[in-house]
Amino acid sequence: MADEFSRIATYFAPLAGIEGRGLADDAAVLTPPPGRELVLTVDQMLESVHFLPGDPPDLVARKLLRRNLSDLAAMGATPLGYLLTTALPATTPETWLAGFAHGLAQDQKIYGIKLFGGDSSATPGKISLSATLLGHVAPGAALGRNGAQPGDNIWVTGTIGDAALGLQARLGKLADPGGYLTSRSMLPTPRVGLALAGLVRAAIDISDGLVQDLGHLCAASGLRAVIRAGLIPASAQALALGPAWLESRLTGGDDYELLLAVPPGGGPALRLACGAVPVKKIGVFQPGSGVHVLDDNGGGLPLQTPGWRHFG
Amino acid sequence: MADEFSRIATYFAPLAGIEGRGLADDAAVLTPPPGRELVLTVDQMLESVHFLPGDPPDLVARKLLRRNLSDLAAMGATPLGYLLTTALPATTPETWLAGFAHGLAQDQKIYGIKLFGGDSSATPGKISLSATLLGHVAPGAALGRNGAQPGDNIWVTGTIGDAALGLQARLGKLADPGGYLTSRSMLPTPRVGLALAGLVRAAIDISDGLVQDLGHLCAASGLRAVIRAGLIPASAQALALGPAWLESRLTGGDDYELLLAVPPGGGPALRLACGAVPVKKIGVFQPGSGVHVLDDNGGGLPLQTPGWRHFG
Repeated sequence: MADEFSRIATYFAPLAGIEGRGLADDAAVLTPPPGRELVLTVDQMLESVHFLPGDPPDLVARKLLRRNLSDLAAMGATPLGYLLTTALPATTPETWLAGFAHGLAQDQKIYGIKLFGGDSSATPGKISLSATLLGHVAPGAALGRNGAQPGDNIWVTGTIGDAALGLQARLGKLADPGGYLTSRSMLPTPRVGLALAGLVRAAIDISDGLVQDLGHLCAASGLRAVIRAGLIPASAQALALGPAWLESRLTGGDDYELLLAVPPGGGPALRLACGAVPVKKIGVFQPGSGVHVLDDNGGGLPLQTPGWRHFG
Repeated sequence: MADEFSRIATYFAPLAGIEGRGLADDAAVLTPPPGRELVLTVDQMLESVHFLPGDPPDLVARKLLRRNLSDLAAMGATPLGYLLTTALPATTPETWLAGFAHGLAQDQKIYGIKLFGGDSSATPGKISLSATLLGHVAPGAALGRNGAQPGDNIWVTGTIGDAALGLQARLGKLADPGGYLTSRSMLPTPRVGLALAGLVRAAIDISDGLVQDLGHLCAASGLRAVIRAGLIPASAQALALGPAWLESRLTGGDDYELLLAVPPGGGPALRLACGAVPVKKIGVFQPGSGVHVLDDNGGGLPLQTPGWRHFG
């Protein structure tokens, strides 16, 4: 493998924005967008924990960015750029690094972000990666988990559970003939760019599973959530697997859809703001605590697994 | 080990500034200091690469912050706060985490920084850590590596080589009776807070070794550096080891002192700006390329190892 400095020059310097100063200084310099607040988040991806050893490196890179972009989306922020760490075994082939950098470049273009800086290291262990994403919001407009009010409706973007089912497909536990579920597991779509300010009182992205992340919203807002399993949006591919996989859809992670607390009557404006991104009402916040999932008869649905623990 | 959420609440939430929103949202929100540019850097520390398995966790935490603070110092930036990632084996004892958080708290106080956010994960491998530091500078005042001019003198803070010798002591390769060299290896002193703007034309922190990092300054500025080995400041403890360790002092890493390009005649003002931090002139920049180390007779000093590759 080429040495650290030539690898940075070959693969990462071409990805750097002007803030990154060619990746040739000790740090990046960013002029903050005037009159805006900055939003900052970091997520790591570890081989055999967050991705599998044979996963294509471009998809690993893009999922790393997209998991972080999803956190920015949950805060209502517009992405700016990122810092990256890589720890790679000495045996990592150049083709892996080239694929990884290619994936970063693809998503930089799609999401309008640039590389600001980073740190690379050799490791005697497995691949470990992290990205720190920066975005911006209007002052005071950042969404949080703690603003939901009793009577607010619970809305969700997209379809829920595809990624968890896709992981099961990749592990050989179920059939995924068209590869749709697998693709949702390997390349999520962060819901950045929705103009949610003023329409939504609280938000979270679904990374640990619908039930667990809704539980975080409830805890932060001091409320109880009541949702109906039959209303939770699912893809045709997920539904085709039958009711035996319902719990996986509700508790599996890696969806990177948004859970939103929307005041009563706010549905039409929300739909308008979300444009082509489908949104669906699945329940309501009430005084109390905890997440209560109802079946089609209005009875409580017992769940074995509250949340998501990745592969590890 | 307690689960992820209770560990965050116990050990990390108390370290968070208001920007971190109690570590209970998807991201941090920072109001940038008005009229300032932001400086951003990230560094990772991997067990068995950047620290040894038995190292005290509070010192590991502090070194993680200080390596990043040193990058901010090299840019002339004032520190603001940081985001943190931890990947810990399930066998990591609570006492390790408590010690690690205690070390973070100590250096937060010393350097006036706060935790903004982070990500924690379990890992089947060894401990891996990263910190993304944010600081600020006056617009246009960030120091870089590329501003040195022919005739500028080369200055350095502190003493050089203690950390590399301290590492050798920890590996049992040399005696360190008072433990001074070891302490310099485990807990460096980043040179933040020096008012270098206007006095210094280029800067870098010495993380990979004096010769290698001076080489980066030379390459970025398109110049040649000529330094005299006999002028390079050394601690009494390092000098006591004798001339056999000279090359280790010049090429060993982890010093986290600053290398500075100072216009002719700028020495007195530099000394004033550095106050209690010792600074010493060790050479001069000339047209050309490369780093040339002269012995006491003015002859070239041959070096076996250009730079530093940590433990790994």
